[in-house]
Amino acid sequence: MRIIRYAVGGVRHYGELVSGESGIARFEGDPFTGLSPTGHVDEIGDVDILAPLERPRIFGFAYNYASHIDETDRKVPEVPVCFMKPSTAVVGPDDAIVYPADGELVHFEGELVVVIGKEARHVKPSEAHEYILGYTCGNDVSDRVVQRKESAFGTLLIGKGQDTFAPLGPVIETELDPSGLSLTTRVNGVVMQSASTADLLLAVPDIVSYLSRYVTLLPGDAIMTGTPAGVGPIRPGDEVEVEIEGIGVLRNPVVAESL
Amino acid sequence: MRIIRYAVGGVRHYGELVSGESGIARFEGDPFTGLSPTGHVDEIGDVDILAPLERPRIFGFAYNYASHIDETDRKVPEVPVCFMKPSTAVVGPDDAIVYPADGELVHFEGELVVVIGKEARHVKPSEAHEYILGYTCGNDVSDRVVQRKESAFGTLLIGKGQDTFAPLGPVIETELDPSGLSLTTRVNGVVMQSASTADLLLAVPDIVSYLSRYVTLLPGDAIMTGTPAGVGPIRPGDEVEVEIEGIGVLRNPVVAESL
Repeated sequence: MRIIRYAVGGVRHYGELVSGESGIARFEGDPFTGLSPTGHVDEIGDVDILAPLERPRIFGFAYNYASHIDETDRKVPEVPVCFMKPSTAVVGPDDAIVYPADGELVHFEGELVVVIGKEARHVKPSEAHEYILGYTCGNDVSDRVVQRKESAFGTLLIGKGQDTFAPLGPVIETELDPSGLSLTTRVNGVVMQSASTADLLLAVPDIVSYLSRYVTLLPGDAIMTGTPAGVGPIRPGDEVEVEIEGIGVLRNPVVAESL
Repeated sequence: MRIIRYAVGGVRHYGELVSGESGIARFEGDPFTGLSPTGHVDEIGDVDILAPLERPRIFGFAYNYASHIDETDRKVPEVPVCFMKPSTAVVGPDDAIVYPADGELVHFEGELVVVIGKEARHVKPSEAHEYILGYTCGNDVSDRVVQRKESAFGTLLIGKGQDTFAPLGPVIETELDPSGLSLTTRVNGVVMQSASTADLLLAVPDIVSYLSRYVTLLPGDAIMTGTPAGVGPIRPGDEVEVEIEGIGVLRNPVVAESL
């Protein structure tokens, strides 16, 4: 199922893409407490597509592709290295990534995102799929200048957590094997990242297992799984696309902050 | 006003401490959408006191007292250095801090915690008080072994984010000048930290202003302002108390994880 979240007439709904993806079968409820069909179909051209999650907790994994570790001159971490992005960083498809007024070097990072469907603690890798609702595309936008200053002290928040720094979407695909999906990031149509999720150092089941060993995962949590090689700068006026096989394209313009 | 959150008969309420703190005037609602008196008074001995916030976003500031920077052999950071703790790390007064099965060195950190009352973005230090609901005590429990391994790669999550690693309470005090409060942390009755919030490098108004420059702060967000000198280990069987002048004592036992 391809779950989409959208607004029509100012009211927010979850729905399922149908009819060659031109229609949305509207649901009542949400994927975490239960979806029920309404029988109503909205035309995709008539709605405003939203991020598939409203203000989720966002966990991120850093240095999770060897190719990206190589380009940063790091070694493979001794333990999985994780961080959080605030819920207020989330924007949806076609929403602007706001380039901060004091930004000097802001990077895109295309990533596969896991959406948790059920509360999870001490989950084995072999059981992880039972707790996963599905997958979406994400862009782990990062202000490298702030990130480096924070990371020198072993912390990370503003470097990756500014408002609009977590585009998610366009859909949550619930029927997907995440183990070998092609992931492509384009800036203004030019391919910048091209990789397979087969190259994740910590694969999806291990990611869910590791986090749940220490942290109770909640329905609606989003886990950004890390970015492959090819990260680079974006500037106001650019358009970034993160495309993942079987999910779709997450497209966002970059717009300068106006204070 | 001293706002307390509690459960009685399995139902959760907000209330106000009254009658020399032996009674709780029960409210309907919550401090963020509105409290209204019910006229009912609960006896404090009859209720289960909860963390004053349910699953808040938690922002933390590191290296924010010179005395703590000294004991860690760090320099003063070039920018404020921040992190997040997951909402699931929160526990209330008298709840157990669970010592992880694989824990080797877990530290307490007594801290003043700011509770945000209104959505805040681009707030000036001089206006910060308008967005603050009040203050509570917090313990920024930290697994130093994991923290060091994560921080070597410039990230931080499991080191400070494990379930039960964010005790908060016992009340939110709404009438308090945060600029010179004495803060004391005791382990098994022995004073380990004794400081004044006057020594915060980034004071409360600057903390709110800095975060809100990049992140939209939401009602119910908790901001842990940093810990002074004197951090040290806790072990199963210990009892930790964080006391802040004008707020009260946050007391938590440390209990070994049972798997």
